[in-house]
Amino acid sequence: MALANVSPESRVVAYLGPQGTHSEEIALQLYRGKAGRFTPYANIDGAIRAVADGKATECVVPLENSLEGAVNTTLDMLAHEVDLYIVRDLVQPVRHNLLLSPAGRHVNVIVSHAQALAQCRHYLHRHFPRAELQAVDSTAAAAYLVASGAKDHAAIGSRRAAALYGLTVAATDIQDHPGNCTRFVVLRTEPAVPAAGGKTSLLCRIDGTRPGSLCGILQEFAARDVNLTKIESRPARTALGEYIFFLDVDGSLAEEKVRAAVAAVKMKSLWFKNFGSYPVCPTPDGEQY
Amino acid sequence: MALANVSPESRVVAYLGPQGTHSEEIALQLYRGKAGRFTPYANIDGAIRAVADGKATECVVPLENSLEGAVNTTLDMLAHEVDLYIVRDLVQPVRHNLLLSPAGRHVNVIVSHAQALAQCRHYLHRHFPRAELQAVDSTAAAAYLVASGAKDHAAIGSRRAAALYGLTVAATDIQDHPGNCTRFVVLRTEPAVPAAGGKTSLLCRIDGTRPGSLCGILQEFAARDVNLTKIESRPARTALGEYIFFLDVDGSLAEEKVRAAVAAVKMKSLWFKNFGSYPVCPTPDGEQY
Repeated sequence: MALANVSPESRVVAYLGPQGTHSEEIALQLYRGKAGRFTPYANIDGAIRAVADGKATECVVPLENSLEGAVNTTLDMLAHEVDLYIVRDLVQPVRHNLLLSPAGRHVNVIVSHAQALAQCRHYLHRHFPRAELQAVDSTAAAAYLVASGAKDHAAIGSRRAAALYGLTVAATDIQDHPGNCTRFVVLRTEPAVPAAGGKTSLLCRIDGTRPGSLCGILQEFAARDVNLTKIESRPARTALGEYIFFLDVDGSLAEEKVRAAVAAVKMKSLWFKNFGSYPVCPTPDGEQY
Repeated sequence: MALANVSPESRVVAYLGPQGTHSEEIALQLYRGKAGRFTPYANIDGAIRAVADGKATECVVPLENSLEGAVNTTLDMLAHEVDLYIVRDLVQPVRHNLLLSPAGRHVNVIVSHAQALAQCRHYLHRHFPRAELQAVDSTAAAAYLVASGAKDHAAIGSRRAAALYGLTVAATDIQDHPGNCTRFVVLRTEPAVPAAGGKTSLLCRIDGTRPGSLCGILQEFAARDVNLTKIESRPARTALGEYIFFLDVDGSLAEEKVRAAVAAVKMKSLWFKNFGSYPVCPTPDGEQY
């Protein structure tokens, strides 16, 4: 699918910083050696809002993880706060390491991004049953914190973060599940020009008080042999028990059957948002975000 | 629905502590003035595991919030780590307050449970755009941290926590959404004896590679006029893009149509878990968890 309207010279890529996050790694893989600037943001909200506000032309943000599920901030921003499109999708293996300060002694506190802490829950339970777990905005921020002098702290982060911040890698591959992957998306203000293949993402809110209303939505895809690859419920923010659904389907809006199914779903929805069609790119082995 | 096999004298209620959490509030509302003991745990995992390990007869844990959605730890523990049943369901309004140390000055860090921070995102963005947000295990743990001498820290927590830990309530009702509610459940090792009414919860994993397989599950309920009140997807922990679904339906296993639909869903599932039928109890106004 073609990406229009951003010349390489004017490209500004927002990502979850600081240096050493997985988001930065993905941004570098996509655009290394090409023109454009990279701008780190302290949190995912900030990186997404930068695109909506015109301060960046695109952002690279995590969308879901194979162990921990949806990155709620990304979904909620897409649903409620901004009108952006997914223009690319990348899946990256996740590898976590235990990082210590060279001056570190006994570990009392383990600091990392909340998802990284959750992805290493069994390892931490086994090796550090008494340690306090502390969540910060990114694994790289955790590495920075340990490097800044918290001697009884250890961070969970990448080898790149260890090298950037002068930490020792005390244990490698500490994630609970060897197949652990994170899916990242690139967001822009304009959709990609659809071509055949890839995926299409949308959001709908239905009347949850009627039996079978979600079933009626899913039938529109099943009847046209369009495969639903994901369904994720999030609160509608209206009342407890009211949900919106994020749906991903195989195929693009360039295909008649996808276009027809999406149009039928839109007709049946109380609220609807189309995040566009985009190519899906596996990426080489990475480390963590 | 009757709750068998726990005498009041032998009752031990595990909850997310320390004192001053919303979970403690719910536990007190349910059992105040009755026989039994209350045992706080430092995190949700611990409270749930205490029941599975026989150290407690039941636990009170949050399951979902109207703004922030599922409490993933609770869902993942129920799915993958323990075999417990939901015996009661309570919905509580959430009210958050900004708590300061009486000796506090400029606020550089705001500390709370991750969901409480998320539920006050707009307020924090407006009033403390530069503050660092730090997640800890509970709002009460956050209040304790501020009371322990972190002078440039503020906590988000309950009025009860402010009173317990000697903090000043600097702002009230700072949650972004006035209708914000949290749903709590009581978990035991044995199901409640089903009676008509209430809800039934179950988990299933289906073959996600076939178009229409989720639709086929939902049709079993729709065909019998059983209303689906919730569907929540979580990673199956097998591979990215493979999900399990938590389903709640109106009605109990004492009703023939619910029993028939649940049996049909079990037949169509690759993996299935039944969390039982239970009564749904609204509770009076509370503050936060």
